[in-house]
Amino acid sequence: MSRDIRISFIGDSFVQGIGDPEHRGWVGRVLQATPRNVTAFNLGIRRNSSEDVLRRCWQEVEPRTLPGADNRLVISFGSNDTIEEDGKVRIDPARCLDNLASILDESEQRAMTALVVGPPPVIDAGEGHLRRTSKLADEMAALCRQRQVPFIATTQGLASDPTWTREVMAGDGAHPGSGGYTKLTDIVLTSLWHEWIAHPGH
Amino acid sequence: MSRDIRISFIGDSFVQGIGDPEHRGWVGRVLQATPRNVTAFNLGIRRNSSEDVLRRCWQEVEPRTLPGADNRLVISFGSNDTIEEDGKVRIDPARCLDNLASILDESEQRAMTALVVGPPPVIDAGEGHLRRTSKLADEMAALCRQRQVPFIATTQGLASDPTWTREVMAGDGAHPGSGGYTKLTDIVLTSLWHEWIAHPGH
Repeated sequence: MSRDIRISFIGDSFVQGIGDPEHRGWVGRVLQATPRNVTAFNLGIRRNSSEDVLRRCWQEVEPRTLPGADNRLVISFGSNDTIEEDGKVRIDPARCLDNLASILDESEQRAMTALVVGPPPVIDAGEGHLRRTSKLADEMAALCRQRQVPFIATTQGLASDPTWTREVMAGDGAHPGSGGYTKLTDIVLTSLWHEWIAHPGH
Repeated sequence: MSRDIRISFIGDSFVQGIGDPEHRGWVGRVLQATPRNVTAFNLGIRRNSSEDVLRRCWQEVEPRTLPGADNRLVISFGSNDTIEEDGKVRIDPARCLDNLASILDESEQRAMTALVVGPPPVIDAGEGHLRRTSKLADEMAALCRQRQVPFIATTQGLASDPTWTREVMAGDGAHPGSGGYTKLTDIVLTSLWHEWIAHPGH
């Protein structure tokens, strides 16, 4: 019999599902479309950068793992790192990549199978933000490739999606409604989600 | 302008929404029916007793509060405390009440408006469990009354609800599906949820 899968999803407001009238975001929709029964924990916090996530990651993930279970971690951040405040980006991209590497290394040590979902765009943060976030996403993808951790790119796909951009602009400028979260769900599901779920953990 | 409301929901598998095919449980459904925009965090962990919740409560709630926001806390536990293991209940009821009192005292000190949702029944744990849980729920209600913290009773209402019991018995013996969670949502919404949301925090 296959082991129980327990997944902690850690990240920012997009993980949290801010703006979704159904209050489940892409995480809840992806789980609903997952045939296997999964115990899931949503650890998204709005405005969180990679620094914020790293700071709380293990103290929050630890009580959500179970010895003997197939414990996993889905990580998604970066959109807040590349936001400009007072003329400078919040977190330097090299630092963000170090933070991701640190989390992936620790996951490996804890025998937790990891997956990374790339940073969605923040539409009202403009072209500069989109350029920085796309570049960061590419670098995250390369880092994940080196470690054989699956990476799901979202930045460009969402920035050019009419449902995502329309809902975001009708909302708070950053977060979509149910249509946008459904689009992000589709991106995750049609990437390597199902293989990742089927692949037994460590 | 009224302040942003941020609510952490902390507790056990019922808070987490285990068994719900839509992956949002009563917490997501209650939020969807709440007219005000609320930033919510689901901190439910299956099998958690009041001890487990107390242990992690403030370290997890702290990074989810924002200075100046209307920060609130919804607490729901007890169903695991009253489970019998190896011939004794997991957590003595007096201890469970102390744990609740401790969390409510700390909420007060942190100026976080609190609300308590009583423990749902665990159908396949039998009559003894239902009797213990109902008694514990009454004592929790009395403790909340003393502190003028709203308490929403769920134990008896769910134990006698045909949708809840049918879904639970068709499932894992403890957790319902979407119908049961909708029933629990109705109990919360028709109690004092809306007044609690409308009432400005500290």
